Amino acid sequence: MGTVEIEMEPPSASLTYFELPGLAEPIRWLLAYGKIKYVENPISFHIWGAYKGTTPAGQLPILKIHGKVLHQSMAISRYLGNILDLAGKTPLENWEIDAAVDTVTDLRLKIVACSMEQDPVNKVFLTDALRNEFLPEFLGNLDNQARINNGHLALNKMTWADIVFAATDYFLNDVYTKTFPGELLTGYSNLIKIVTRVKKIPAIKKWLETKST
Amino acid sequence: MGTVEIEMEPPSASLTYFELPGLAEPIRWLLAYGKIKYVENPISFHIWGAYKGTTPAGQLPILKIHGKVLHQSMAISRYLGNILDLAGKTPLENWEIDAAVDTVTDLRLKIVACSMEQDPVNKVFLTDALRNEFLPEFLGNLDNQARINNGHLALNKMTWADIVFAATDYFLNDVYTKTFPGELLTGYSNLIKIVTRVKKIPAIKKWLETKST
Repeated sequence: MGTVEIEMEPPSASLTYFELPGLAEPIRWLLAYGKIKYVENPISFHIWGAYKGTTPAGQLPILKIHGKVLHQSMAISRYLGNILDLAGKTPLENWEIDAAVDTVTDLRLKIVACSMEQDPVNKVFLTDALRNEFLPEFLGNLDNQARINNGHLALNKMTWADIVFAATDYFLNDVYTKTFPGELLTGYSNLIKIVTRVKKIPAIKKWLETKST
Repeated sequence: MGTVEIEMEPPSASLTYFELPGLAEPIRWLLAYGKIKYVENPISFHIWGAYKGTTPAGQLPILKIHGKVLHQSMAISRYLGNILDLAGKTPLENWEIDAAVDTVTDLRLKIVACSMEQDPVNKVFLTDALRNEFLPEFLGNLDNQARINNGHLALNKMTWADIVFAATDYFLNDVYTKTFPGELLTGYSNLIKIVTRVKKIPAIKKWLETKST
């Protein structure tokens, strides 16, 4: 008997990141949404120092797709949003999506900075400012925006901003609950609606049920 | 003699920000590039607390244009880049611009965080990390990118990323030189080339000669 050659279809993309949700999470959710085949290329923290120099900008995540090496998580997410028909049709429509995404980034940076603060006095100060001022204002505004847009962040419809928001909430909530009691979005019903809706998209739902990170 | 009615052409846009370069600067440079008429609506710090609630997201700058109120400085800059034909032609080309812009934002956030740090011990730590690790790596990578792109940040040509970079350098350099001796871009000849080139664009050159902030 001869051998049987099985032609393996190569995955069309690979995602390089640490073995955690983090900044790769919005990219993973968008790849799942688009049913784009990819392999995970996990980098452990102890080899990161040596690996860093081989990356185009000294940063992760990196998405290799169509022979290109893409970095910067939000720029990659926007690219995927565009090729997956989750973007706007005009510059003004895209501004609306981009502004929402930048606000989600502001939120992420504030929460992560607070959680990473090592100085105990500073930490109390940052925690108080976050809980009593920043979060109520930011989440209040975003929730209102989600209400006006019928359970979406922009354009009254599902865009890549919704998927970025739900994926960011997924990992940010973990960071948040380590510092604060309760979940990040408690009380913001319109924002919860976005997350629920994104998680119910069949391709994302299916992927969430099998994901390991 | 009767009166002569002079029809005043209303400015097509207004820009609301504090009376300083800051986050409004890339928008101002792009408006100048596009010869878009606008009025400045300066907000003094002592009225900001009262004014904040009237803004769509509690943040400045705000650009009112074509009857829309736009916020988030980079989302506005991308919008202007698109309408002024300074963006890419494909999602992948736009990724290249966006990744460069996000890297410039990372740079800005690091320098501003260091300059704002009040705790003297933390400040020494952040300053050392910025000068000895972050800046050489980030600016080295960006300079290399500018070399490969023939004196531009992306696509081998002038894009809105170059204008954002030059305008950010304009205000960031002020912040930087308050903490460090020397200018931010000293030694990075390809990055200096971008700034020089943007400042020589006739519409921007003319506007820079008359600007007040």
